[in-house]
Amino acid sequence: MFAVYASEPNADDPLASLVVGERPDPEVPDGWVRVKVEAASLNMHDLWTLRGVGIKEDQFPMILGCDGAGTLDDGTPVVLHSLMGDPDWKDDETLDPKRKMLTEWAQGSFADYVVVPKRNALVRPEGMTATAGAVMGTAWLTAYRMLFTKSGLRGGQTMLVQGASGGVSTALIALGRAAGMQVWVTGRTDEKRELALRLGAHQVFESNGKLPGKVQAVFETVGEATWKHSVRSLQPGGTIVCSGATSGNQPPAELAQMFFLQKNLVGSTMGTLGELRDLLDFVATTGISPEIGQELPMTEATKGFQSMLDGETAGKIVFTR
Amino acid sequence: MFAVYASEPNADDPLASLVVGERPDPEVPDGWVRVKVEAASLNMHDLWTLRGVGIKEDQFPMILGCDGAGTLDDGTPVVLHSLMGDPDWKDDETLDPKRKMLTEWAQGSFADYVVVPKRNALVRPEGMTATAGAVMGTAWLTAYRMLFTKSGLRGGQTMLVQGASGGVSTALIALGRAAGMQVWVTGRTDEKRELALRLGAHQVFESNGKLPGKVQAVFETVGEATWKHSVRSLQPGGTIVCSGATSGNQPPAELAQMFFLQKNLVGSTMGTLGELRDLLDFVATTGISPEIGQELPMTEATKGFQSMLDGETAGKIVFTR
Amino acid sequence: MFAVYASEPNADDPLASLVVGERPDPEVPDGWVRVKVEAASLNMHDLWTLRGVGIKEDQFPMILGCDGAGTLDDGTPVVLHSLMGDPDWKDDETLDPKRKMLTEWAQGSFADYVVVPKRNALVRPEGMTATAGAVMGTAWLTAYRMLFTKSGLRGGQTMLVQGASGGVSTALIALGRAAGMQVWVTGRTDEKRELALRLGAHQVFESNGKLPGKVQAVFETVGEATWKHSVRSLQPGGTIVCSGATSGNQPPAELAQMFFLQKNLVGSTMGTLGELRDLLDFVATTGISPEIGQELPMTEATKGFQSMLDGETAGKIVFTR
Amino acid sequence: MFAVYASEPNADDPLASLVVGERPDPEVPDGWVRVKVEAASLNMHDLWTLRGVGIKEDQFPMILGCDGAGTLDDGTPVVLHSLMGDPDWKDDETLDPKRKMLTEWAQGSFADYVVVPKRNALVRPEGMTATAGAVMGTAWLTAYRMLFTKSGLRGGQTMLVQGASGGVSTALIALGRAAGMQVWVTGRTDEKRELALRLGAHQVFESNGKLPGKVQAVFETVGEATWKHSVRSLQPGGTIVCSGATSGNQPPAELAQMFFLQKNLVGSTMGTLGELRDLLDFVATTGISPEIGQELPMTEATKGFQSMLDGETAGKIVFTR
Repeated sequence: MFAVYASEPNADDPLASLVVGERPDPEVPDGWVRVKVEAASLNMHDLWTLRGVGIKEDQFPMILGCDGAGTLDDGTPVVLHSLMGDPDWKDDETLDPKRKMLTEWAQGSFADYVVVPKRNALVRPEGMTATAGAVMGTAWLTAYRMLFTKSGLRGGQTMLVQGASGGVSTALIALGRAAGMQVWVTGRTDEKRELALRLGAHQVFESNGKLPGKVQAVFETVGEATWKHSVRSLQPGGTIVCSGATSGNQPPAELAQMFFLQKNLVGSTMGTLGELRDLLDFVATTGISPEIGQELPMTEATKGFQSMLDGETAGKIVFTR
Repeated sequence: MFAVYASEPNADDPLASLVVGERPDPEVPDGWVRVKVEAASLNMHDLWTLRGVGIKEDQFPMILGCDGAGTLDDGTPVVLHSLMGDPDWKDDETLDPKRKMLTEWAQGSFADYVVVPKRNALVRPEGMTATAGAVMGTAWLTAYRMLFTKSGLRGGQTMLVQGASGGVSTALIALGRAAGMQVWVTGRTDEKRELALRLGAHQVFESNGKLPGKVQAVFETVGEATWKHSVRSLQPGGTIVCSGATSGNQPPAELAQMFFLQKNLVGSTMGTLGELRDLLDFVATTGISPEIGQELPMTEATKGFQSMLDGETAGKIVFTR
Repeated sequence: MFAVYASEPNADDPLASLVVGERPDPEVPDGWVRVKVEAASLNMHDLWTLRGVGIKEDQFPMILGCDGAGTLDDGTPVVLHSLMGDPDWKDDETLDPKRKMLTEWAQGSFADYVVVPKRNALVRPEGMTATAGAVMGTAWLTAYRMLFTKSGLRGGQTMLVQGASGGVSTALIALGRAAGMQVWVTGRTDEKRELALRLGAHQVFESNGKLPGKVQAVFETVGEATWKHSVRSLQPGGTIVCSGATSGNQPPAELAQMFFLQKNLVGSTMGTLGELRDLLDFVATTGISPEIGQELPMTEATKGFQSMLDGETAGKIVFTR
Repeated sequence: MFAVYASEPNADDPLASLVVGERPDPEVPDGWVRVKVEAASLNMHDLWTLRGVGIKEDQFPMILGCDGAGTLDDGTPVVLHSLMGDPDWKDDETLDPKRKMLTEWAQGSFADYVVVPKRNALVRPEGMTATAGAVMGTAWLTAYRMLFTKSGLRGGQTMLVQGASGGVSTALIALGRAAGMQVWVTGRTDEKRELALRLGAHQVFESNGKLPGKVQAVFETVGEATWKHSVRSLQPGGTIVCSGATSGNQPPAELAQMFFLQKNLVGSTMGTLGELRDLLDFVATTGISPEIGQELPMTEATKGFQSMLDGETAGKIVFTR
């Protein structure tokens, strides 16, 4: 079948290992299902796989793609949940020490078909396109958990999103707006700030810009470039939810601010199957639709990988099939 | 000044003690402010005051009205918070054993002016009418705390509101819808169920009717007439938030259901100043406006009291001045 | 091998189906382990199994026994965790709709050997006897979850245990005392109250007796006979944790008390593997040892079943092998 | 009356402003009470006051001492709570932006008498000495809140205390041991580690030493010298509770560890009146008694200040009168 895959690990020139070609049709183990892929989104994780990070040499060639939307053999439209783990683990699955993303465990979704455990294919709500569904299982799920499970925000409170254009940030803006939060966003350029406003931000600010007041929660995926601003922007007792640190992960920790004003830092990564189910219901109920940065046929995947490597796009890149 | 007040306790014929007349202009103690009242809503609490319940005989005559909206002497539009309590209490103010509502502590808001501690007058958001503001401090605040502080619901989950037409129920429907919940409502009549749909309910059901699935949270103000249905409608681990029991408060407790499926009952009453502040921001941010059942000039207050006593209206009755 | 088992369901005369005899040696499926049983405790659940409740007819004959302690084939001393469930369930395992106790799923522990999934055999701490270990997986685990996960109590606060002599109650008293709580206990007889004092209660009271003050949490396994007292004994904002209702499960619910004073009812049942691990560490660290009501060789199991049916014993009955 | 006070701010030579002498007898405002001081402990805060930090110039001369134990005029033994704040604040009082310690607000406790609001004098449990009571309101209250309100630990879990000899650390060790936690402690010297063992630690380690496993919670008051070790010692989902950073507050933040393994940092400072009440009950119930580093008559206060400035003592310095 058609597939976009990593032929071998390539730390220095990841795109040199990217192949748009053919791979054998997959077998379907007991308890697993086959999904005909309609759309899947590109994640930084796919670049890491090309580089050979988080994957063993004997797992190559590996079809890329950690999320996606498509249909089961019986025609049911589905969205993929990317996490798999230890069958003996009974607790929040994002805390399972053996948890893995789809391409660390099985072949990925940039292909005609992807095969996953039955529980990892969730029914897609009526009216949700495959393109929209494709970003639910990674960026939007991460944002959902940060906002609804970890931040402690309640309706009407103020949230600050650091960075306007990343996949998680754009999801946070849309989700926060639809849940009745006051959404403030920082962005490095006019273009990024305009994107944030279009997505629903109430107010936008330059990176590290002065805010009109303190906020109850900050959402961090930037790290070193914004950390001090994040800590100082919080009201006493407030919470920073952090799921990434693209500009570096070793800013000075600002402990005095943290302890004296009883601020909290809460780490977050991905989300559970239950959170994905609630996210799909939330998107269906509120009628929001995800902003897609760029949509390409899967056959032109190389172009999408190049854009991500160059840092050129805002929002998510989705490949369709 | 003009005032609507209770002349004396009257357990059997509460309306016989209701006077629409004149009371002396209030003094303004240090640390208190005077509010020119524009609107205030009628609560069951006002009927209890006429009956002499929760108030001592030497507190009469007592101006009625436990919430309201108006303007400070400098023209600032405000909304009233009704709770006052022990100055030594430093914790959730709804747990203060000495907490009281406005008319248990000071003269109420059905008058030209009401005088309250400075902290009890919150700035009213731009664009919120006095009529809308009048219902925020009681019914809507109660609903806000139930939904956002007590239920544990997160965006996209399903809530069941028992009863379609009470002040708290109508607020719950509107708040839940605006926060991205799936809102299911039961009502005794077609008229009440249509009201629920108009307010934003996704699905409505007859009282104790069969639901298409289990819910994550139930909102109870009815009590005996709906309790068994409430308990059975919950999924394992789900929560009933209860702030009233108008049909009786001694239904069989259904303990086996509660413990074996690990369900929770959480009591809730009124809300804190911080919750009222967040509610006002939520209403302003989402642009929802409260459904008012009936609006009357304060001079016709008797008519409103009669309607409430007869159980004739749906939604809140607001008196304007 | 030797085994104590239920030959067939017998609703009216459960002991008539109890056989102390022989059953085939068990096979050990992949991912499961064989435990040589040294001790196991009797639970009400075993009487239900004899009656045919919670078990299908084609599952008989069924070896009884839902907990236990013994050794793996390599000599490692272990304690059993009784819960099994849906392999696709990744969350608090006590909320899994398909969760089952040992004898609902596989052959039980009143035998020379019991075979369980590997995760269900936890290493027994040094110094913990098999008899002590035998009660950890059911009564003590239930009590641990109620106290440490569900009650919200913090060190130094006051807990009321309703009933002095049941397996869960005796565990709650010992755990609460060892965790630094003020432990108050009600009991129906002098003998039961003396037992409570011996186990560590600070104060004991007659059933429904007047207390010297309000408490932060109540622990309920009695139900109808004590419910009103439980609700009234709570301070505002306090919590009743309920894991049973031996005297009946339909007391009047006392909703007015619950909502106006913001009291909570929290259902609880059994506990997770992680809670069992922490319980074992707690018992080892604090050096408490469980009070055993009666200890009998497994060959005399009938005597133990008869005592439980007659309601004659206080504390747990443990069978040793 | 006799008093130990700061005559004026002295940033460079704080002890030069320390006077052991006489100050006027205090007046007792309405709603306040007079406490005859028996014992009070020395805190770093007193050195900051001598330096003029956190206090205005016109507040001098200021009697030092932020905690203490003594008796009311009617002979009731009491313990002081040090926090005062905005009378309009109704919520967790440690989050009140206007909160202050005793000597920032009123004259302190190193004197014959101290005068405080009535709510700030809590009845001292029978059997608690004044010397023990003197350390409850600051170091022990801070430790209580960290352990019981903020850490999320439940009985039997493992806690790591960074630093063996500070006032908060010694309190954490004793409280954790008495609550049934596994207590691991790091210390820089044999002497400090032996102190930790004597106070109840189960295992001690060199600073930044290798641990036998991951822990559920870390208690930080050291900061830069231990931060990396703290973050790495946590199991996924674990929590660092931080109430100080004596070695510096800007360690690299280790964000990648924090977000990918979903670790949490929770700031904590002092504690509420309710927490102090529960702490006193916990100490009385468990029978633990605080380790006092050095006990001196108040007339020799200068010696105690010199020791603290030189960093010579382990545990708390208490002045008696």
